[in-house]
Amino acid sequence: MSSQERSKILLNIADALEASEKLIIAENEADIAEAQQAGYEKSLVSRLALKPGKVSSLAKSIRILADMEEPTGQVLKRTELSQGFILEKMSSPLGVLLIIFESRPDALVQIAALAIRSGNGLLLKGGKEAKRSNAILHKVITSAIPENVGEGLVGLVASREDIPELLKLDDVIDLVIPRGGNKLVSQIKASTKIPVLGHSDGICHVYVDKSADMVKAKQIVLDSKTDYPAACNAMETLLVHTELVNTGGLNELIVELQIKGVTIYGGSRASSLLNLPEASSFHHEYSSLACTIEVVDDVYAAIDHIHHGHTDCIITEDHDIAEMFLHQVDSAAVFHNASTRFCDGFRFGLGAEVGISTSRIHARGPVGVEGLLTTRCVDGVEAWSCKQNQFCTVELRRDDAMRLSGFA
Amino acid sequence: MSSQERSKILLNIADALEASEKLIIAENEADIAEAQQAGYEKSLVSRLALKPGKVSSLAKSIRILADMEEPTGQVLKRTELSQGFILEKMSSPLGVLLIIFESRPDALVQIAALAIRSGNGLLLKGGKEAKRSNAILHKVITSAIPENVGEGLVGLVASREDIPELLKLDDVIDLVIPRGGNKLVSQIKASTKIPVLGHSDGICHVYVDKSADMVKAKQIVLDSKTDYPAACNAMETLLVHTELVNTGGLNELIVELQIKGVTIYGGSRASSLLNLPEASSFHHEYSSLACTIEVVDDVYAAIDHIHHGHTDCIITEDHDIAEMFLHQVDSAAVFHNASTRFCDGFRFGLGAEVGISTSRIHARGPVGVEGLLTTRCVDGVEAWSCKQNQFCTVELRRDDAMRLSGFA
Repeated sequence: MSSQERSKILLNIADALEASEKLIIAENEADIAEAQQAGYEKSLVSRLALKPGKVSSLAKSIRILADMEEPTGQVLKRTELSQGFILEKMSSPLGVLLIIFESRPDALVQIAALAIRSGNGLLLKGGKEAKRSNAILHKVITSAIPENVGEGLVGLVASREDIPELLKLDDVIDLVIPRGGNKLVSQIKASTKIPVLGHSDGICHVYVDKSADMVKAKQIVLDSKTDYPAACNAMETLLVHTELVNTGGLNELIVELQIKGVTIYGGSRASSLLNLPEASSFHHEYSSLACTIEVVDDVYAAIDHIHHGHTDCIITEDHDIAEMFLHQVDSAAVFHNASTRFCDGFRFGLGAEVGISTSRIHARGPVGVEGLLTTRCVDGVEAWSCKQNQFCTVELRRDDAMRLSGFA
Repeated sequence: MSSQERSKILLNIADALEASEKLIIAENEADIAEAQQAGYEKSLVSRLALKPGKVSSLAKSIRILADMEEPTGQVLKRTELSQGFILEKMSSPLGVLLIIFESRPDALVQIAALAIRSGNGLLLKGGKEAKRSNAILHKVITSAIPENVGEGLVGLVASREDIPELLKLDDVIDLVIPRGGNKLVSQIKASTKIPVLGHSDGICHVYVDKSADMVKAKQIVLDSKTDYPAACNAMETLLVHTELVNTGGLNELIVELQIKGVTIYGGSRASSLLNLPEASSFHHEYSSLACTIEVVDDVYAAIDHIHHGHTDCIITEDHDIAEMFLHQVDSAAVFHNASTRFCDGFRFGLGAEVGISTSRIHARGPVGVEGLLTTRCVDGVEAWSCKQNQFCTVELRRDDAMRLSGFA
C-alpha cells in the first residue's frame, strides 16, 4: 500500500471512532461494571475506563499520525561506496507485531494506528476484562480498512489460551510488545524466542537533593505520583537527601502526599527516621496511590540506588549536581525539575506510543513509529546510470581488493 | 573516560599491534599448525589465519576509528516539549558486551576497538583453535590501556565452560554478539535471556535474471563465491531464470565456477535440468568452495525463494525488474549488479564491524559503532535557565494537562 492509502485508512479510522463514540462508551461501561462486580483492583478498573473526551483525543492523535511524513522508505543514510555505487540505508517495516496488553483499550487504538502508519502487520491480544471495549474498537478500526486490504491487517486474538501458541511463531512474528505490569512482561520474555520490547521494570524515581527548591519539589512529586498513578511513568520511589530529614519542607511534602490519599512506605532508613511502615521491596510497582520513600546520603547514593530505571528525575537548584545526575543516571529518560509524567510518546512529539521501552537495544523510552521500523541497505537508484554505462561496481570492487583484503 | 582518552588508547593499540606484529604472527602460525594437525576443516583454518598485511590493516582501521567523531553523547534529536523544556535524545553506550567468536582472531581486535570507541565494557570469548592468537592480541591490547583504567575494560574468557554461566548474567551483560556459524548463534539464542545480535541465517543469494548481461553475471557470481568463501557474505545459493537453462552463458558460468574449484549442488529443479548432485538443504551455509544452484520461473519466484536473507543480489539489465527486487527483497542488504562481498562494515564506511546482523530489531546489516549504542532522553541544558527563572516546566505540565489527558 502507498503512503497515501495508509494515511487515508487512518483518517477513516479517526472518523469512524468519532461516529461510533456512543457505542464504544457503552461497551466500555459494560466492561467497567463487570470488572467492578468481579472485584478487580481499583488501578485496573481505572486503566480500563475510557474517560470523557478520550475517544475524540484518540481520533485527534490518529489524524496527527495520518499527516506525518511517511516513515518507511526514508533514506536514513547515503554512502558512496565507490564512484557510482551509492548505498542507501532505508527505513522499512519490521514485519508482524504481536501486542499483548492488559486493561487499557485505548492502547489498542494507538497501537493499531501506529502499525498502519509504519506498514506493519499487527496481532492484538487484549485483556479479558476489556473484551467488549476491545471488540468494538477492533470492529470500528477494521470496518474502516478497505476490503481489498483485508481485515487480517489488524487481527484481534480473543483467547488467552492462544498466547503460548503465538509466542512459538518466531518465524512469523517479528516483535512482541507486552503492555502491562512487570509480571506480564517477565512471563513473556521467559517464554519466547521472538524479540520482546517493553519495560519489565517500570520503577520511576524522583530524587530531592538538599539544594532543592521545596516548593518545586512538592509540586513535581505530587504530579509524578498523583496525576495518574496507574501509568507506568508515575513515581514509585521518592529518594530524599539525608539533610532534608525532619525539615519543614520534607514534612510538608509527606503530609501533602498523605492528604492526596497516598500510602507511604519507607526503605530501611526512611522507615525508622520518618516513622513509616517498611516497604516490602524497592522493585515493587505500586501503580496506585502508594509509594516508597528512602533517605540517601547524597546525589551519588541516589544515582547508585537508581542504577538504571525507567524515568528518573532530580530536583535541585544546583546546576552541577543536576548535570551529574543527568549524565550518570542510565535510564530511558532523565529529567531535571520536571515530573516523571513527562515521559510520554505524545509529549515527546511521536504522535502516539506503543509503550515505553526500558530495553537497551532497539528503541528506548517512549516508542512511536520509529521503534516499529527496521532498515535495509539498498544500492541506490543513482548507481543505476553508472552501472548501465560502464559496469563500474564490479570493476571497482576488484580494483579495491587490496585495500579491502584486510576487512573481509 | 573522555573521548580524547579513548582515542588515545586506540592509537596506542594500533602502535602496539604494529610493534608486536612478529610475535602475533608467530603465535598465529602455531595455532594454524595445531589446527591442521588436529584435522580441522579447511574453512576454519582459513578463517584462523592472519594473512600477510592483516596486522597493519587492522592497525589502520583502528586509527580510522580513533579519528572518528565521538559517537556517544551525540544529540540525535532535540524536541522542545514546551517553552524552555527541551528534550534531547542522546546516544549512549549500551553497557557490557559479550562477544563469542569462532576462529577469526582479527575479530577480537576489531571488536575491542569498536567497544573502546563506543565506551562499552567488553568480554571476549574466542575459539580454542585460536587460543594463542587471541591471548597475544588480548595482551597487546590491554598493555596499551592505561593502568588507571584497568585491564577489566576488555576481558578475555578462556574456557568454554564459562559460557553457560556468562549467559545467565542478564543483569550484568547487555548484549551478546555471537560471531560464527548458524549453529553457534542458534545455540546461544536458545540459552540466554540477554538480547542476541547476530545472523543465525547467513545465506546470501545471487539471482541471475533472463535480462542479465552474462559477462557481468559471471564476474559477480565468481567474486561472490570465490573471493573469500569462508566469509558470511559469500554467495551460497545461485538462482537462475528458467530461460537461461542450456544457454551458453549459464553453461560457461557453471564451468568457470567448477574451474575455480567450486562444488555445485542443485535444488530439485536444477539437479535434474542441469544434471547436478542434489543439495541437502537450501539452509546450509557452505562457508567453503561449494554452492547450490536452483532454477526459478521469474523474479517473483526468486523473491519468494529468498523471502528474507542476509545479502542478496540481482543481476539484470532491466531497470524495472531491478527496482522490484530491490524494493521487495527484505534482507539486511540488497544489491543490483554487485557482488555480495560488498556487504561489509569497512566498505560501508563504518570503520570496522562487530559482525553482520540479520536481526530485524536494533542494528541490521554490518554493525559498527552505531549498533553498540543505545539512547537516553535527557532534558537539555537549555531548559535550565528557564527553570531557574520561572519554574516553567511543571507550570506548563499543568496548563497542558487537558491536551495531554488522553495520552497518559
